[in-house]
Amino acid sequence: MKYLVRMDVSLPTNLDVRERTELLEREKAYAQQLQRDGVWVHLWRVVGQYANYSIFDVGDHDHLHRILQDLPLFSHMDISVTPLATHPSALS
Amino acid sequence: MKYLVRMDVSLPTNLDVRERTELLEREKAYAQQLQRDGVWVHLWRVVGQYANYSIFDVGDHDHLHRILQDLPLFSHMDISVTPLATHPSALS
Amino acid sequence: MKYLVRMDVSLPTNLDVRERTELLEREKAYAQQLQRDGVWVHLWRVVGQYANYSIFDVGDHDHLHRILQDLPLFSHMDISVTPLATHPSALS
Amino acid sequence: MKYLVRMDVSLPTNLDVRERTELLEREKAYAQQLQRDGVWVHLWRVVGQYANYSIFDVGDHDHLHRILQDLPLFSHMDISVTPLATHPSALS
Amino acid sequence: MKYLVRMDVSLPTNLDVRERTELLEREKAYAQQLQRDGVWVHLWRVVGQYANYSIFDVGDHDHLHRILQDLPLFSHMDISVTPLATHPSALS
Amino acid sequence: MKYLVRMDVSLPTNLDVRERTELLEREKAYAQQLQRDGVWVHLWRVVGQYANYSIFDVGDHDHLHRILQDLPLFSHMDISVTPLATHPSALS
Amino acid sequence: MKYLVRMDVSLPTNLDVRERTELLEREKAYAQQLQRDGVWVHLWRVVGQYANYSIFDVGDHDHLHRILQDLPLFSHMDISVTPLATHPSALS
Amino acid sequence: MKYLVRMDVSLPTNLDVRERTELLEREKAYAQQLQRDGVWVHLWRVVGQYANYSIFDVGDHDHLHRILQDLPLFSHMDISVTPLATHPSALS
Amino acid sequence: MKYLVRMDVSLPTNLDVRERTELLEREKAYAQQLQRDGVWVHLWRVVGQYANYSIFDVGDHDHLHRILQDLPLFSHMDISVTPLATHPSALS
Amino acid sequence: MKYLVRMDVSLPTNLDVRERTELLEREKAYAQQLQRDGVWVHLWRVVGQYANYSIFDVGDHDHLHRILQDLPLFSHMDISVTPLATHPSALS
Repeated sequence: MKYLVRMDVSLPTNLDVRERTELLEREKAYAQQLQRDGVWVHLWRVVGQYANYSIFDVGDHDHLHRILQDLPLFSHMDISVTPLATHPSALS
Repeated sequence: MKYLVRMDVSLPTNLDVRERTELLEREKAYAQQLQRDGVWVHLWRVVGQYANYSIFDVGDHDHLHRILQDLPLFSHMDISVTPLATHPSALS
Repeated sequence: MKYLVRMDVSLPTNLDVRERTELLEREKAYAQQLQRDGVWVHLWRVVGQYANYSIFDVGDHDHLHRILQDLPLFSHMDISVTPLATHPSALS
Repeated sequence: MKYLVRMDVSLPTNLDVRERTELLEREKAYAQQLQRDGVWVHLWRVVGQYANYSIFDVGDHDHLHRILQDLPLFSHMDISVTPLATHPSALS
Repeated sequence: MKYLVRMDVSLPTNLDVRERTELLEREKAYAQQLQRDGVWVHLWRVVGQYANYSIFDVGDHDHLHRILQDLPLFSHMDISVTPLATHPSALS
Repeated sequence: MKYLVRMDVSLPTNLDVRERTELLEREKAYAQQLQRDGVWVHLWRVVGQYANYSIFDVGDHDHLHRILQDLPLFSHMDISVTPLATHPSALS
Repeated sequence: MKYLVRMDVSLPTNLDVRERTELLEREKAYAQQLQRDGVWVHLWRVVGQYANYSIFDVGDHDHLHRILQDLPLFSHMDISVTPLATHPSALS
Repeated sequence: MKYLVRMDVSLPTNLDVRERTELLEREKAYAQQLQRDGVWVHLWRVVGQYANYSIFDVGDHDHLHRILQDLPLFSHMDISVTPLATHPSALS
Repeated sequence: MKYLVRMDVSLPTNLDVRERTELLEREKAYAQQLQRDGVWVHLWRVVGQYANYSIFDVGDHDHLHRILQDLPLFSHMDISVTPLATHPSALS
Repeated sequence: MKYLVRMDVSLPTNLDVRERTELLEREKAYAQQLQRDGVWVHLWRVVGQYANYSIFDVGDHDHLHRILQDLPLFSHMDISVTPLATHPSALS
């Protein structure tokens, strides 16, 4: 079941460099593991913004919420979620 | 080059049934041809709405505009376009 | 799996009385059947508006979209859908 | 008498861990007591957000305001309230 | 129990003069009866607009919804409703 | 001459308790004096929010602005003002 | 007492030419009379739009509402009104 | 003196084909004459929309308003205008 | 050439009293000099808000931008600018 | 391929003067180099605001994103990007 997710990141300006680097590395590792698991199926950067549009494919709402809530950057993000259904004209 | 496109359809209420059917069939054939061509790479229905989110993959803005402008439903749609870049954490 | 759905109805002003009555009766019968089926689990009127907030409980997005699209009033409504997850403080 | 309530939580980033834990535990205990009292009748998490949609069932506006104002997280929340009436098509 | 209600009127431009006059007279009579009943306790015109802000005092949401739905102009209005509680600094 | 005024309060989180108490007491005394003077004619709490809707009755815009600007909480508030005229259907 | 007023005009597309001309002439005569009376003290066109910003100087809200409601174009306009007070740095 | 202008076109659906063609030809001729005159210095299509962003270079506001008001499509457009100043980092 | 300018002031809460007083005095002196110069032709307070609506009369956009950018409060303001043209019904 | 880009700058108020000067000098040098390279083809100041509208001409989305992300002021800006296509009435 697909969801379109938009994440807008806003890091605190007073974050120290090491903490920031460590945080972003954990975020990246987490995102890549979920891609390998087939759960985070697309991940695109919004041009000009510290934001992404993503497609998630999970079995239910609770699963998606747990995944998003566990994002290392979760508390620094605005996230919006749109449920997607099969389109009658889609070939696949 | 990827674009996220959202289309919201609003058909005139006085459209006669035959005209409507013919219009929707042309729209569907057009959408499926573009999918076969590898240009309209994803097409999802927004749950509960006469709307879709789509991913297009084309070489430049002019090409995308021609494709969208030639949609049989173009004059009955609100369309918004977001350019997407490669995300540094994306595996593919 | 729960969804919060808001529906805002806007009937065309030129609808004739019989057509309108028949449409609203079909809508009511449809809504009540879905309630008996355990799919449309709550249905409330927004005070002062021709609108409702509802809770649906269905297995997946496609199922919810089919249900909403088949509403007799579908083409006269603005519908918005919010997916709901289990809350950690909820007792039931 | 039913109200749909949406709460969006935004904790200060400089809250210390112990204070935060203690605050969230008080919030949870308070929310569960109100559920047991039959006042906070539904509580759902908005997927991907630190927010909930809830249904309250109380006798009047003053009662609802006292309950919301006494939420341990009240000063860290944006709250919106929509009064709900009985829907003529609702079975229960 | 008090509610702040805002009503924005938008009459169809093709309404014939007699129908319009009759409609507005029924609206006025209805509004004045509710004022005499102590239910519609304040009624003010928004300067420069075909709109009003009103205060209603009724026992519950269902009662308010019935009153608003029965307004002769109901189908030509946008209505928004804000529940009001007692303010701790109010003298009366 | 009547004005509808909405005030949304947002106190700084780092205000110390004594300062906060003293500020709120001055606000309350000021609001009650204006009510006794017949200037602040209604004061209601917006349910679920640190906000109020009020009706002021003053002779001119300058008078209203002086009153609002002198509110002890003025610098912590968002205020919006709507001028109200006599409604032709109002009985009083 | 000053008010900033913005008027956005939206004429029905099916208005016949003679009716339109007559309507606009009455609007102009009315606007100029109010300027001569010292009531409509400024009148500016918003560049690129069928809209104006104006300053009115009247004794009270009821007077302003009567003036605006009697505009020949009133039923084809969106009007917003902002009350203006004396600014402490203004020389006149 | 530069202005950024955005025009969103919305043609009536019942326009007959000949009238529409004639209207669009006049619009095009007018736009091209203004480009030759050095007044309409840039003209771009917004991808996916019947809309454009343009740069005008004229001596004063009145001149720009006359130009826009004389657009054959003026009554079918929403137009917004943003005045642009020289940027201190601009090379030309 | 006229511009309608709206300025919304938001002073930092931690500004010390002397700095604040000095800043506001410079702002006032600057505003009054521009009024004497015939550039800042009207200045009104928005009732209930730390905001003003103003009319500027300058020869070009660059001049207006320099004036606004040099306001002592510039970095604490949100400013919006609307270019105004001569209205065909204006007497002066 | 053209993009309209709007950048709104919001510098932290606690930035020290030297850091601020150095930051703005790097921003200016960077902007001017991109103009010399033919990539940042127009740069205008929005009158009255710490903001600009710009036109970029680059080969693809990824290139534009890298350029914007490398702006020395990137983390202090809100940026929005609109893809522009060739307009059929444009002469050049």
